[in-house]
Amino acid sequence: MKHFSETKIIFRFFLITALLSSPVAAFDYLQPLPDEIPVPANNPITAAKVELGKILFFDSRLSLDGTLSCNSCHNIMSGGEDGRAFSIGFQGKKTRRSAQSLWNVAFKTVLFWDGHAKSLEAQTIEHILDKTITGYTNESDFVKRIKSIGGYQQAFNNAFKNTFNKPVEINLKLVSQALSSFERTLTTPDSRFDRYIKGEKSLLTEQEKRGMEEFRLKGCIACHFGVNFSGPAPGPALKMGDGFYELFPNNRGSKYDKLYNLLEDKGIYYLTKNPGHEYMWRVPSLRNIALTAPYFHNGSARTLREAILIMGKTQYGHDLSDQQVEDIQAFLMSLTGKTPDITLPRLPVSSGKSVF
Amino acid sequence: MKHFSETKIIFRFFLITALLSSPVAAFDYLQPLPDEIPVPANNPITAAKVELGKILFFDSRLSLDGTLSCNSCHNIMSGGEDGRAFSIGFQGKKTRRSAQSLWNVAFKTVLFWDGHAKSLEAQTIEHILDKTITGYTNESDFVKRIKSIGGYQQAFNNAFKNTFNKPVEINLKLVSQALSSFERTLTTPDSRFDRYIKGEKSLLTEQEKRGMEEFRLKGCIACHFGVNFSGPAPGPALKMGDGFYELFPNNRGSKYDKLYNLLEDKGIYYLTKNPGHEYMWRVPSLRNIALTAPYFHNGSARTLREAILIMGKTQYGHDLSDQQVEDIQAFLMSLTGKTPDITLPRLPVSSGKSVF
Repeated sequence: MKHFSETKIIFRFFLITALLSSPVAAFDYLQPLPDEIPVPANNPITAAKVELGKILFFDSRLSLDGTLSCNSCHNIMSGGEDGRAFSIGFQGKKTRRSAQSLWNVAFKTVLFWDGHAKSLEAQTIEHILDKTITGYTNESDFVKRIKSIGGYQQAFNNAFKNTFNKPVEINLKLVSQALSSFERTLTTPDSRFDRYIKGEKSLLTEQEKRGMEEFRLKGCIACHFGVNFSGPAPGPALKMGDGFYELFPNNRGSKYDKLYNLLEDKGIYYLTKNPGHEYMWRVPSLRNIALTAPYFHNGSARTLREAILIMGKTQYGHDLSDQQVEDIQAFLMSLTGKTPDITLPRLPVSSGKSVF
Repeated sequence: MKHFSETKIIFRFFLITALLSSPVAAFDYLQPLPDEIPVPANNPITAAKVELGKILFFDSRLSLDGTLSCNSCHNIMSGGEDGRAFSIGFQGKKTRRSAQSLWNVAFKTVLFWDGHAKSLEAQTIEHILDKTITGYTNESDFVKRIKSIGGYQQAFNNAFKNTFNKPVEINLKLVSQALSSFERTLTTPDSRFDRYIKGEKSLLTEQEKRGMEEFRLKGCIACHFGVNFSGPAPGPALKMGDGFYELFPNNRGSKYDKLYNLLEDKGIYYLTKNPGHEYMWRVPSLRNIALTAPYFHNGSARTLREAILIMGKTQYGHDLSDQQVEDIQAFLMSLTGKTPDITLPRLPVSSGKSVF
């Protein structure tokens, strides 16, 4: 797979020994969400692009039958996803994997469960041209739809005028740049965990602190570390486009493999067909995880409790006690952050003319 | 139809002669949107109810398959409807009539195209229990769904605590009260027309003023008068629950009857089976009409231009000239008002548990 072969896959094995044997406290590896978001040089963020991206994000007319917007499956009025095992796409079609949260997406180095998209822009383009999702099979039908909506031309002119200084030719690339710019602003700082790490020590309960310690001791932290609890964010340690991967399930053979259908989908192997990539997945974020049930790429775990129990077993062979599961769950629930106030966009119209 | 037999139907015939022969200027019958909205005594508006109503309005989990929210068909990021001839409801089912705009709905005395709902609350309840729309066939399944979403109980307690002072039992009536309270706040004041009427005489162009005069002279104003361009708003002239009706098509026999399929749906006759009610429709509002194409109860007119031409012929037998149509269209486009800034709600969650 050309698309994937260029991607560097970083496995957590290089890090785990150092982390688990380290005498330093867990929160050196657990960091608050930074105030600044990583932005790629080829798509600098501007207020006008963000505003256009917000409009595009909420405009269901942009799907082929006009029923789905980005927000339908990545609901930013909630956990940034749709609370389903699999999303319902174009005319009732189901997606192959569970929709992931868009919150804090700027801190991901690769996109999708299997990390095959090397940028948010690439992910956006792939989504828009996915006939299971939007119904489109080519760029021109999609662009034709946008252009049929009077008002979008002006919105694109506004958003990209500094780049072009002439009337903007609407295309999929600009759509992906605007959408990605908006999506990068979707951060959830100031969770109780973040405030605790920054010094407000009274903000975590004793149980939550026990959970945080279990989270380290049981090895969860070996993959779920860093500002987004998903390994390195884009930066010196991991470039945008390089993925931080882990096996799931790692220890196969437990009852959970079958109960939760964990062996059917082999992760990035689906694309690379490299036997060494079987069951390799990009490490997902744990921020706002209280809001994103059901869990896993196939949404098979209906509760966070189950997900913790399964991860303990499938990744390390641990049989976590009820108390340990509850403590870890309590800790994870402290990762729910503050969402920004977002004003409803006003969608461009075709004055006095029907779009459909 | 018991439901309808109690409703007083007011025909425009009682008014038309007086209006057309009147020497007073058109804008005595064309009024700006009032600052105050009519609110029924049995559902006083409160900030907490409005806030809960907003949450319910945007929560697609409340439809049976979790794909549709109120906003799906009554899109308040746009014209307050979905820009379709017929809406796409539960699992692709089409509605029988075109979705109407929710903007300025507080100023309607009866709801639905045929006006059979005597309050916004009644309309809401009927919609929620419409299996074509939400998929539900009974109240208990709907209430069960809301109750399954942790966080709603507290939201209902907050919204209705002054009424009850005890834990609130969630039911369809309270849902309809909260939703209606929110929807009544959806007003669009300060259109250029409104500001013109209030004294900013430079805000309408010469063409728009010509269009306003044609609107009066051609008789459009006989039905489309008052603050909402739909006859009397709730008040001394017309009580909430009494409908202001008109025949459409009035002069049958033109080519438009067939071209736009105007004879198939007989309006409120569908419910009353009273021969005198054939083709009687509640007079719809014209505010924000630039945003609500396609037009008519069946969405058969794809452009405002067509709609004006057809209305001239079917209601009065006028063959409007291109210039007259364009002038009237220009005037109607001045009725697009200012939408309020609405912050995205944060939907209640079931922490760590899947709703579906």
